[in-house]
Amino acid sequence: MSKTGTIYGVGLGPGDPDLMSVRAHRLLGSTPHVAFFRKAGRKGQARQIVEGLLPENVIEFPMEYPVTTEIPLHDPRYNEALSTFYADVTQHLIGLAQSGQDVVVLCEGDPFFYGSFMHLYARLRDIVPVEVVPAITGMSGAWTATEAPITWGDDVLTVLMATLPEDKLIDHISRTDALVIMKIGSNFDKVKSALKAGGKFDDAWIVQYATMAKQTVTKLSEMTDPGTPYFSIIVVHGQGRRP
Amino acid sequence: MSKTGTIYGVGLGPGDPDLMSVRAHRLLGSTPHVAFFRKAGRKGQARQIVEGLLPENVIEFPMEYPVTTEIPLHDPRYNEALSTFYADVTQHLIGLAQSGQDVVVLCEGDPFFYGSFMHLYARLRDIVPVEVVPAITGMSGAWTATEAPITWGDDVLTVLMATLPEDKLIDHISRTDALVIMKIGSNFDKVKSALKAGGKFDDAWIVQYATMAKQTVTKLSEMTDPGTPYFSIIVVHGQGRRP
Repeated sequence: MSKTGTIYGVGLGPGDPDLMSVRAHRLLGSTPHVAFFRKAGRKGQARQIVEGLLPENVIEFPMEYPVTTEIPLHDPRYNEALSTFYADVTQHLIGLAQSGQDVVVLCEGDPFFYGSFMHLYARLRDIVPVEVVPAITGMSGAWTATEAPITWGDDVLTVLMATLPEDKLIDHISRTDALVIMKIGSNFDKVKSALKAGGKFDDAWIVQYATMAKQTVTKLSEMTDPGTPYFSIIVVHGQGRRP
Repeated sequence: MSKTGTIYGVGLGPGDPDLMSVRAHRLLGSTPHVAFFRKAGRKGQARQIVEGLLPENVIEFPMEYPVTTEIPLHDPRYNEALSTFYADVTQHLIGLAQSGQDVVVLCEGDPFFYGSFMHLYARLRDIVPVEVVPAITGMSGAWTATEAPITWGDDVLTVLMATLPEDKLIDHISRTDALVIMKIGSNFDKVKSALKAGGKFDDAWIVQYATMAKQTVTKLSEMTDPGTPYFSIIVVHGQGRRP
């Protein structure tokens, strides 16, 4: 009987392949199976980052999210569809590991920081060996792109998801020194309004496609493109004590 | 006349050399000068992480912090001593760059996240070319060590320095979902007290020497060693929605 394989949750970092860890790079080049999330019909952002870094005969397992656009987020059927999806792909990964195969699961950013991998991790960890490789977060890529430190001295940093209700956003925005806002997309207008109410709109930067060829860094107050920003992170720098 | 050299602020990540980025690894192995902070008489944590990764004939520039143990933190002479120190080492780095030499400055964690490099960066950036290489933060190393995701869904994450006043710590601790506390050292008793008052003591973990050989992961409530923890980060996981 073969030895059980390991499932590696490998963080790829913010997007530039040169910013993945040495360990991630080595695992990508030497593991016979690679799994990754993608939307139906798309290539998948994580898969694109590792283009050219996988073994020649790698076996790919695209994990395609169920189409949920017609189900409201708070409808129980939404969670049901996702839950079934995670259970199905987990079964496939367990099968591979139990037949002795190692598998890399590609994770954008850091796997344990607002990632999708954690939904697999919770279902895998008591059944087969799982190892998580941390990575540079998307927000590190974003604040580095602004060419200014995010935090100094004893600045408080708060990380908010734009999906939160506006009053909660305002409350946290007004109490923190440094700020990161992610998952912006269709919540962009709400976020801008919350930043104004919280007194930080004029100091906010928006970084799109951080560390990638398409990267843009713009003061939010000077943004002229009215469209919905994709792969974007808002950053407000702390101004704490400095000698 | 020779071309001006570049000062690279290179993030080394949480401690395990295998977790530095591919770009950091390449710069370390190919840059003729390396500079790093250390306390007088110590080898320096950053320098230890890169042991064996530097070119054979590398020229080392240890930047030794002035001894400030006898000056209270809020005495103006404290900031003065540090400010003079930063100005002096900056001059040396500018001299190297202007004579055409590239220099790597070693940074623990991510250079723009509560680092010391930013004090050099602010003084260098208008004079010589400076490039910052982001890295895996110490806190990513710490939450990965706990083997559980730090944030789910739309959890709020707050990062606090233990040097803050206790009432401010309690206020932020009680309002967040997920929590990271750093710079613990001699503030350990204050932090434990604030975690109790903020209702998160029982869910807190303390990670020492994350990703390094000496790593320990302990529930704070079960910690038996009463000593001051070094290189330690406290983590409280968010419990947001999950399918």
